[in-house]
Amino acid sequence: MKFILACVGCSREYDAETPLWRCRVCGSPISLKIEDYPELNRFQDIVEDDLTLWRYGKLIPFSDFRVSIGEGLTPVHIHSFRGMEITFKFEYFSPTGSFKDRGASAGVTRANALQASTIVEDSSGNAGLAYSAYAAVGGLRARIYVPEDAPPAKLRLVSAFNAELVKCRSREEASERAVSELKQGEMYVGHLWDPFFMEGIKTEVFELYEFSNIDFDAVVVPTASGSHLLGIYRGFIDLLEMGFIDELPAFIAVQSAGCSPVYEEFYGEKFEGDGSLADGLRIKNPPRMREILKVLRANGDVVVVNNDEIREAIKYLLKLGILVEPTSATSWAGMMKLESEYRKILMPLTGTGIKTAEKLQNL
Amino acid sequence: MKFILACVGCSREYDAETPLWRCRVCGSPISLKIEDYPELNRFQDIVEDDLTLWRYGKLIPFSDFRVSIGEGLTPVHIHSFRGMEITFKFEYFSPTGSFKDRGASAGVTRANALQASTIVEDSSGNAGLAYSAYAAVGGLRARIYVPEDAPPAKLRLVSAFNAELVKCRSREEASERAVSELKQGEMYVGHLWDPFFMEGIKTEVFELYEFSNIDFDAVVVPTASGSHLLGIYRGFIDLLEMGFIDELPAFIAVQSAGCSPVYEEFYGEKFEGDGSLADGLRIKNPPRMREILKVLRANGDVVVVNNDEIREAIKYLLKLGILVEPTSATSWAGMMKLESEYRKILMPLTGTGIKTAEKLQNL
Repeated sequence: MKFILACVGCSREYDAETPLWRCRVCGSPISLKIEDYPELNRFQDIVEDDLTLWRYGKLIPFSDFRVSIGEGLTPVHIHSFRGMEITFKFEYFSPTGSFKDRGASAGVTRANALQASTIVEDSSGNAGLAYSAYAAVGGLRARIYVPEDAPPAKLRLVSAFNAELVKCRSREEASERAVSELKQGEMYVGHLWDPFFMEGIKTEVFELYEFSNIDFDAVVVPTASGSHLLGIYRGFIDLLEMGFIDELPAFIAVQSAGCSPVYEEFYGEKFEGDGSLADGLRIKNPPRMREILKVLRANGDVVVVNNDEIREAIKYLLKLGILVEPTSATSWAGMMKLESEYRKILMPLTGTGIKTAEKLQNL
Repeated sequence: MKFILACVGCSREYDAETPLWRCRVCGSPISLKIEDYPELNRFQDIVEDDLTLWRYGKLIPFSDFRVSIGEGLTPVHIHSFRGMEITFKFEYFSPTGSFKDRGASAGVTRANALQASTIVEDSSGNAGLAYSAYAAVGGLRARIYVPEDAPPAKLRLVSAFNAELVKCRSREEASERAVSELKQGEMYVGHLWDPFFMEGIKTEVFELYEFSNIDFDAVVVPTASGSHLLGIYRGFIDLLEMGFIDELPAFIAVQSAGCSPVYEEFYGEKFEGDGSLADGLRIKNPPRMREILKVLRANGDVVVVNNDEIREAIKYLLKLGILVEPTSATSWAGMMKLESEYRKILMPLTGTGIKTAEKLQNL
């Protein structure tokens, strides 16, 4: 199979080995394309005997250079609620406790293949931790730019992995400095931009197809940079192109009040309120806005939730025995606000509540 | 299949439905026996289509009443080190971040089957959290007795699950009060005593047999109450009884300096030093001492590690991208002290380092 990097703005194409993080001509984000999908009778024919997401290595770039430590193959649990069938997928049963491990595994794999000395990331916490861990696995150095008010437990863990931690005044400053301070031989793998990140995420969909069920009316995903939503979309597209499914579910982005740029673009209006409990959803200018809007406009929606709604969602999930961070609980909160006929819903649970213990008490 | 409760002291037998936590006659711990193992050509013939440890439900008591939320089916990663092949099994990729989730799932399942109103546990942290979560899953109340110096993050999470938290002056007081304050309709499920806990743990071994490899020279396990070591032993015994293996690996218990009663019984001497970083290994009088010694004396050993050795182990594992708590890192530290010819080693990684972030920095 051949992978191509394609600019989502000007459509210029690059070889997959080109070490770039955005289009050299127009500056837009890059996406990955597969030129020649394999012709398969059974999906199983492409699956390797590997109990991580790399069992789908034939569909992931640079898989010969995989940097892996047990990510993927997460369990699901089906929960019935008001006539709906909710499929939880436990993305925080993973090396550093969030879905970011999938993307970091694929992203660091590319850095490893292209022989970068150092990976550079900007993050509000979970991604920085995931990339720090995978840099360690791959024997690369890591430098992580974070806003100074990122959750302390997450920052302590980034330090534990010996990554260089650069504290910035804001999430925006972290994004800006991560690329402006890039040096020769270093590779920017920021998940807001890096298309390889999404090649790791898409394996969530392959696992559902291989092990449980792929028949969903809608997928509900907390959305900041959109890399999770777009990664899942990408997985469905791969299945569609290979002929294993013939339609896509609706995609529901959930944002937090106070930082809901996708909602504002989609509906053309502001959304007031405070959703600051969801500290992982603070991207004011997601680089992939156009791609997100395209997916949602084809078949989807965006809802915004506030702290009260997030607290109710956390409480409900805890009663089910589910321990997630507030950012992850926004999907339940968002689903509760949906006015829809969706019956079969996929809800990836994105981050463990262990990192944010102090936010889960006295709700 | 028929399960029998058997006293490990006086051999008295009880029906599996009997709601007891130790022998009514002599007060010794109870173990579970299977009277009539199935005759199978292939292990697969007994495996259910369930992507949790309950796929082995036919070998677990009360499986019709299962209380489950994604536990088990943890990944493995093989690491080569000084001529040895170490198989890490990631037991903290789980609902509450430790191997205790397996035991809690099986233990609360029994409480659910016997219609207890409340489960009661004593714990230094991880078990309390696991039982709180599974009580929520099963719709039972939970009361957890903990030493007041248990890690704060773990206690906050127990509270988040709405369990009643009873702080005690010591680990011993927690154990004592958990049973002395037991009321009608409540069930003591303390993992130091409860044999059903180990019925959950044993599934680690079934997964290795089904998905990867069961050929180990030795199993290295951090040991406090011994419930993890004995649970793994139990899994191997089940495979042996069903004819799928014909020998057992050696069992290596790792204890921490300052609290090493198994070492003292095994070698008849004290072990001085400070291993207090391993806050999960503080059981001074493990009720199952006799069973532990029997396993180790048949083929095994016990090693004791101190804080310096634990710190080195944490650092080494972090360099591999592995984020475990100090208690879990004792197995690596212990293996480093083994003078042995073991080449193929199973090392379950028992608890996430996310809960103990403050102990992983500046080592």
